[in-house]
Amino acid sequence: MKPFVGVLLWASSILAWAQALPSWNEGDARSRIVAFVQAVTEPDGKDYVAPGERVATFDNDGTLWCEQPLYFQLVFMLEQVKAAAPKHPEWKNNPAFKALTSPDPREITRVSHKPLLALVGIANSGMTVEAYDQTIRDWLATARHPKFNKPYTDLVYQPMQELLAYLRANGFKTYIVSGGSIEFMRPWVEKAYGIPPEQVVGTISQVEFETKGGKPVLRRKAKLDFVDDGPGKPVGIYRSIGRRPIAAFGNSDGDLQMLQFTEAGPGRRLMLLVHHDDAEREFAYDRKSNVGKLDRAWDEAKAKNWIVVSMKSDWKKIFAFQP
Amino acid sequence: MKPFVGVLLWASSILAWAQALPSWNEGDARSRIVAFVQAVTEPDGKDYVAPGERVATFDNDGTLWCEQPLYFQLVFMLEQVKAAAPKHPEWKNNPAFKALTSPDPREITRVSHKPLLALVGIANSGMTVEAYDQTIRDWLATARHPKFNKPYTDLVYQPMQELLAYLRANGFKTYIVSGGSIEFMRPWVEKAYGIPPEQVVGTISQVEFETKGGKPVLRRKAKLDFVDDGPGKPVGIYRSIGRRPIAAFGNSDGDLQMLQFTEAGPGRRLMLLVHHDDAEREFAYDRKSNVGKLDRAWDEAKAKNWIVVSMKSDWKKIFAFQP
Repeated sequence: MKPFVGVLLWASSILAWAQALPSWNEGDARSRIVAFVQAVTEPDGKDYVAPGERVATFDNDGTLWCEQPLYFQLVFMLEQVKAAAPKHPEWKNNPAFKALTSPDPREITRVSHKPLLALVGIANSGMTVEAYDQTIRDWLATARHPKFNKPYTDLVYQPMQELLAYLRANGFKTYIVSGGSIEFMRPWVEKAYGIPPEQVVGTISQVEFETKGGKPVLRRKAKLDFVDDGPGKPVGIYRSIGRRPIAAFGNSDGDLQMLQFTEAGPGRRLMLLVHHDDAEREFAYDRKSNVGKLDRAWDEAKAKNWIVVSMKSDWKKIFAFQP
Repeated sequence: MKPFVGVLLWASSILAWAQALPSWNEGDARSRIVAFVQAVTEPDGKDYVAPGERVATFDNDGTLWCEQPLYFQLVFMLEQVKAAAPKHPEWKNNPAFKALTSPDPREITRVSHKPLLALVGIANSGMTVEAYDQTIRDWLATARHPKFNKPYTDLVYQPMQELLAYLRANGFKTYIVSGGSIEFMRPWVEKAYGIPPEQVVGTISQVEFETKGGKPVLRRKAKLDFVDDGPGKPVGIYRSIGRRPIAAFGNSDGDLQMLQFTEAGPGRRLMLLVHHDDAEREFAYDRKSNVGKLDRAWDEAKAKNWIVVSMKSDWKKIFAFQP
């Protein structure tokens, strides 16, 4: 390469890095991310990774979008229970159903999980996958978050959208690896994150192929086939991607094994946790939270020097709609 | 666009089409494939499909590579049973094991499948996924096909390699959707077909995440988690891809449901079966075969006017090593 061209390329790279991640404050988190990306993309560097192996996996709830006060998918699925009630008169005296439909919101915290999840399973199965997909789209179009009064899909983190784009601009393939279900994410994540349906790894319900009446359909069953959370995340990555990530991003103990699995591979690696410490602009929670609990993974992050992002001090803004 | 540029583009398209699929004879199969690709890629045409939705799924055994006289993966797995024998003295009097190791090849046909598959399960589990991957690579490097005396990975069909490349050049994303296991295909399909590991959908064994001794590993269990064959293929596509293919390619009854599922979507579709009718250059088999049986799917292909490729008359050559 001619020296002049080299200098030009170098200058344009510097410029690209300076423009990347505009919603991230200068600081340890941002500079370590940029240093990692420079290291694995520098063709002559000792840490170079070929593009095909540049796999980055992202948890969704609490990492790419908000998860408080309750996982949004759970809100949707509980709504489906209420919507299905007219078809299930036998639920009338079911304690879990009574708690769910009680005007007193504390009632729901008093019933055990198992009968509630049984109702959720029934109400979210039996239909074709296309019909369920449409129900999800319809709900997302009208439902509003109780704190922000915005569509749930507006509650994606602007700095993480920039991070996804920055990684892809540097030859990474970005995946979601979430405890949420594949069907709940696929309708909206391409628009929100630039991640196509085939790069969504998640929890999987049983579906069955049927040709009743000559028309082939896939029908949802009430049984879960695979839970993509905790130790399930490395398994989900193995099953759907077949390559070990070189960078992994999470926010809770459910992401710990994905980060451990990422770190255990050869060569340079990046492990990052988002810490929810901004009660004003979003929510503040960690060790004691029922939703998105960050306890063991936080200790391990400190011990192993993984990046821990403070939403309060590392991010200029959290949501695009905020000033 | 200036007319002159339009004419140039048009001329270069014609040239590209003429050069595509060089191992395919002129005829119905080839011209229908080309007509389909032209139709779905013509931006102003009524059949236009956006690039992200151009999903093409391919069966592997018998569609992309040879599967006779026995599925190559089964040959490998049976070899693993023999290799594991020293660690399993209890197998000595096991009738299935005795049949497998008998000098008389007819013995194996006399035992029932279940005890044989139990041995296969044991011999192909217990190790980490990395160790198993290496065993597969080692075997592929040395094993030879009994008829052709070539490495198994040489027995990929040249016309199908060209078809994969042709579809990708036209904005398609190409996937394998096979009854074979993901781990048996991933080590070699990228080189053979240009299909990366994350685009391999297949049968899945149970694996578990372990951190014994501090090192995180994925360990294989003897249990199957998902069988990607017959009605399992549309389910595998749903789970791993999340979009319905617009083109699907198979060769046996195990591909029927994938082709039905593909056809049932809206817009223009392409369904194709490879018929093994060339005993001289490869093998000839269909309705009566134990391996790659083509019976119900053939009838349905005729009834619905799906493309049926005659390997004998549609393909100039089958393997790259043939004259």
